[in-house]
Amino acid sequence: MDPFIQLVIEAWRIFRMPKETKVPLPTLERLATYFRYLSELASSDVETISSAHIEEATGIRAAQFRKDLSYFGEFGRPGIGYGVRDLLRRIARILKVEKEQPVILIGAGNLGSALVGYSGLRKYNFNIVAVFDSNPNKIGYKLWDRDIYDIERLKEINESLGVKIAVVTVPAANAQNVVDRLVESGIKVILNFAPTTLKVPEGVMVRHVCFIQELTVLSFFLDSDEV
Amino acid sequence: MDPFIQLVIEAWRIFRMPKETKVPLPTLERLATYFRYLSELASSDVETISSAHIEEATGIRAAQFRKDLSYFGEFGRPGIGYGVRDLLRRIARILKVEKEQPVILIGAGNLGSALVGYSGLRKYNFNIVAVFDSNPNKIGYKLWDRDIYDIERLKEINESLGVKIAVVTVPAANAQNVVDRLVESGIKVILNFAPTTLKVPEGVMVRHVCFIQELTVLSFFLDSDEV
Repeated sequence: MDPFIQLVIEAWRIFRMPKETKVPLPTLERLATYFRYLSELASSDVETISSAHIEEATGIRAAQFRKDLSYFGEFGRPGIGYGVRDLLRRIARILKVEKEQPVILIGAGNLGSALVGYSGLRKYNFNIVAVFDSNPNKIGYKLWDRDIYDIERLKEINESLGVKIAVVTVPAANAQNVVDRLVESGIKVILNFAPTTLKVPEGVMVRHVCFIQELTVLSFFLDSDEV
Repeated sequence: MDPFIQLVIEAWRIFRMPKETKVPLPTLERLATYFRYLSELASSDVETISSAHIEEATGIRAAQFRKDLSYFGEFGRPGIGYGVRDLLRRIARILKVEKEQPVILIGAGNLGSALVGYSGLRKYNFNIVAVFDSNPNKIGYKLWDRDIYDIERLKEINESLGVKIAVVTVPAANAQNVVDRLVESGIKVILNFAPTTLKVPEGVMVRHVCFIQELTVLSFFLDSDEV
């Protein structure tokens, strides 16, 4: 089959993927990019921005930017551009990050520790409220200033916390078991750092942070004549 | 414009993106997924595998898997399937991870520390050989068992190391400056964890690990009726 046709089919499949919403997943991903970039601008007290500037800074075409926003109503003014703070606030509302989102973290290892200690999460309104682990040498202690609880108590504790977002930083071999427990405990979206494939029931979303895979892809480009 | 047509154009753009190589970037990304999954199978002493099993485990369609391999010659045998170790070895050769790849890491903070201490990197043949930072309280000390050097010495030290891969775990505000130094020092591919956009000259590749953006995308799906 012609590779372009193949890709059109693939694209169509991806496009139809988030059945849960009318907004295509690639649009959401780009909104998250705009959100991050606008946050930087707001910190630097930039007041207005043009779609051309967005293209220059993010690599996402100006026309694509305008189209992505068009899903959500009217934005910006011709000849003036977009108010940075207004746009930031509206995108935050769309992405539901305008108010603090509590998060639980499973796996109090090095990566888990780095994430709990990472100020960027708070900056984007994610707050790790509790940490779980299965290691008796960690349970009852703290990771930074967060309590480490026994993973066995996950369901019980989350009954009172009511958290919907979890971050998984356990070894690959334990990840599916942890994810099953998370689903049982009412978690709806999972950010997974374990380098393994995970199964979740319908209604639960997983996204993977695969830095090993990213490195592997990069590695391909080494030593080839073209790089 | 019809969103499907829009997406076809986008897909075509992505498809044409890696001009440096005849292999489309999405194929490389899937190869990295097969590689990771086959590594798991090899550790569990699984000897053969079918494309249907690949689909079941990775969510990538069997036909896509066969097509991806077809770029690189003949693989597998009808009715028998694919030898796990043979396939793993051949994909490792394609992705250039069959022999150890030295890596330098910039930013000896919490995330950098987690990465240096992460056994998964070694498992996939990436070896962080040196760490750089600008903090005088860190320079001259060690991160795990790796020396932390002054970022000012990057070019000089990499002249003898000859490393081509760098991992960036510095704050967003410092990332572009660090990347400029990396490019000057002969680095060809960069894995960036800083939540910011980076500019590199032609011939240098950057990939971003954007866990904040991943969380932001996930957040959208919360509290909507459909999840």
